[in-house]
Amino acid sequence: MSVTEERLARAYLLRVAEPPATAVAAFIAELGPVAAAKAVRDGRCPPQVAEETSARRTMDMAEADLEAGASAGARLIIPEDDEWPAWPLHCLELAGRRGVRFGVPPLALWARGEARLDEAAESAVAIIGARASSVYGEHVAGEFAYQLAQRGLSIFSGAAYGIDGAAHRGALAADGLTVALLGCALDVEYPKGHVTLLKKITERGGLVVSEYPPGTPPARHRFLVRNRLIATLSEGTVVVEAGRRSGARNTASAAAALGKIVMAVPGQIGSATSEGCHDLIQNSMAFLVGSVDDVIETVGKLGTPAAERARPTRRTDGLGPDALRVHETLQRSQGKSAEQIAMESGVPVLRARAVLSELEVDGLARQGESGWQQAREVRKSQVSA
Amino acid sequence: MSVTEERLARAYLLRVAEPPATAVAAFIAELGPVAAAKAVRDGRCPPQVAEETSARRTMDMAEADLEAGASAGARLIIPEDDEWPAWPLHCLELAGRRGVRFGVPPLALWARGEARLDEAAESAVAIIGARASSVYGEHVAGEFAYQLAQRGLSIFSGAAYGIDGAAHRGALAADGLTVALLGCALDVEYPKGHVTLLKKITERGGLVVSEYPPGTPPARHRFLVRNRLIATLSEGTVVVEAGRRSGARNTASAAAALGKIVMAVPGQIGSATSEGCHDLIQNSMAFLVGSVDDVIETVGKLGTPAAERARPTRRTDGLGPDALRVHETLQRSQGKSAEQIAMESGVPVLRARAVLSELEVDGLARQGESGWQQAREVRKSQVSA
Repeated sequence: MSVTEERLARAYLLRVAEPPATAVAAFIAELGPVAAAKAVRDGRCPPQVAEETSARRTMDMAEADLEAGASAGARLIIPEDDEWPAWPLHCLELAGRRGVRFGVPPLALWARGEARLDEAAESAVAIIGARASSVYGEHVAGEFAYQLAQRGLSIFSGAAYGIDGAAHRGALAADGLTVALLGCALDVEYPKGHVTLLKKITERGGLVVSEYPPGTPPARHRFLVRNRLIATLSEGTVVVEAGRRSGARNTASAAAALGKIVMAVPGQIGSATSEGCHDLIQNSMAFLVGSVDDVIETVGKLGTPAAERARPTRRTDGLGPDALRVHETLQRSQGKSAEQIAMESGVPVLRARAVLSELEVDGLARQGESGWQQAREVRKSQVSA
Repeated sequence: MSVTEERLARAYLLRVAEPPATAVAAFIAELGPVAAAKAVRDGRCPPQVAEETSARRTMDMAEADLEAGASAGARLIIPEDDEWPAWPLHCLELAGRRGVRFGVPPLALWARGEARLDEAAESAVAIIGARASSVYGEHVAGEFAYQLAQRGLSIFSGAAYGIDGAAHRGALAADGLTVALLGCALDVEYPKGHVTLLKKITERGGLVVSEYPPGTPPARHRFLVRNRLIATLSEGTVVVEAGRRSGARNTASAAAALGKIVMAVPGQIGSATSEGCHDLIQNSMAFLVGSVDDVIETVGKLGTPAAERARPTRRTDGLGPDALRVHETLQRSQGKSAEQIAMESGVPVLRARAVLSELEVDGLARQGESGWQQAREVRKSQVSA
């Protein structure tokens, strides 16, 4: 990690703006991180940026943060780095433009561990669920993570007790790659009982990642904000167990809003930890998955992994059969609803929505006032920040 | 039960034609039962009728059957009786015209028990499932049946071991009305272990019903043929547990083909007895139900019970909100697919299909070559056989 001006600027901004920092992100997009940081530091910035930064703008701890991070084995990944997962975070930004809550990419990400975050996110499945899980749920989470990791997928989760922990452990047991996304800083030992697990994840080639600068304690809203990263950095999210109103349901909603695939594992009725899963399935927010094969099939239907479709030679190269069928129904001048597209393409509406989101990221579709339509130009080359 | 010419004729035809007797049913519709029976007895009938009756046409046991039935407390319900469930069986006939397998109403039905079959079928839910059920499945079946019976619904099932038995017992425990449909004659003690249960059902005001004349032994194909009656005589079918290829799945498929609501109870993944249920949900053949309230809500969405909409003063009176929305999308001259109707009405396709079937029964919709369209005339008065 080279201590560049950009990194110092982003370390400063990450410290002074509580994520998701919509105005600050837009300000950086306009001026670049260095000028934006200087303007914030000097108090010469637009009102909304000032509002997002007023409480902490005098906390200029960038150098100290980077030093503390480095001595603790952590690095600050910034959009200027190769390792930045540009595609999934661009997807997050597009969702924000559509009005999706928390649809703001992080200004930078603290990470500990040897793996490259962009590579880990290339074929990733999130496995999440209730903290107060059942033996059944923990068994399923561990088994799914183990088998998916064995098949080369990385397992993203939130390092919480219960399902999250079981998922990380399952991936570790398979010598797989697992990524823990925290709702607090990397140096905050939380949850207490998972300190050893988090250490093991980094020792065994995985990653522990956080949007929060050193010392930031966990907080309820930080978990909600963190959930969007779990959702956006994976191809699909499997909810193993969830109460009717739970953090796991929140991640599932975030994933659905981002156009990501959401899957839910059923359980016995009357079990409170399965109620959220059943509810997601009943409301067509999640596919029912009964096995690892179901997960692979459901995620795989969207097409080839992001890495393989990064540089298409033709616009629609690399699209899966569903994506091609959806794309064919799009028109240049007239918008259509996802339901209409589903009907015309014969692709189920749940899948069609996910496919449309992918096509949007690929610059092949856009959402106008009248609905979804063909994008006029390839925007791929303009995407990397 | 008065021994009329019609009853004797149908008792004879029921004995000589193995259900489902498509050609015989059509022959009766043409000539009436008495003339049809005479023609069959004399061997002067169309080739297909002859084929359906050739093996047994000399078995003229009508009087003996009616006597034996009467002395055993059984009656033969015929379409000429008030008790005949004309509406649901007309629905079965319409399905047959659409090409649905086994879409042939019974020629008559043997029944034992005090309840009127037409009334029992008015607000009925079928609860079915695997014979090799789990403790969980039996608990759910019993509990659902108990609670639904308490709310005044009658519980239809197949009297098999496992889920069926638990459903009947649950309804009995609530002093509710339960109806067992058999795949053999009423006087055949099958399944052996449920002889007492079947006795209890009739003693406690319920019904045991069969399409098969006295002495007919159970057979695999008779269960499949019987399944269509369970499906058609109830508003909706709840599959509590089912293997991936099971009789319960067959009933569910039959119900779906008839445009009836199919519901499935989820269970733990890895449990073989829940695989069929998960499969039905994954393939959009069944709604996931997690509680009795879910069942009531799912069944209730189709509108008011059949009894209340028997004599509408206007064509669309008595239709539920979904049915009204679906009906409004229908045109007189041009047909539409169920998918298109679902999109236009905003009613999910699974429900739209069920609603369309109901509208067809009500004479408000018909399926032409180009798809679903408005029916031209009210056919209600012509329905009763």
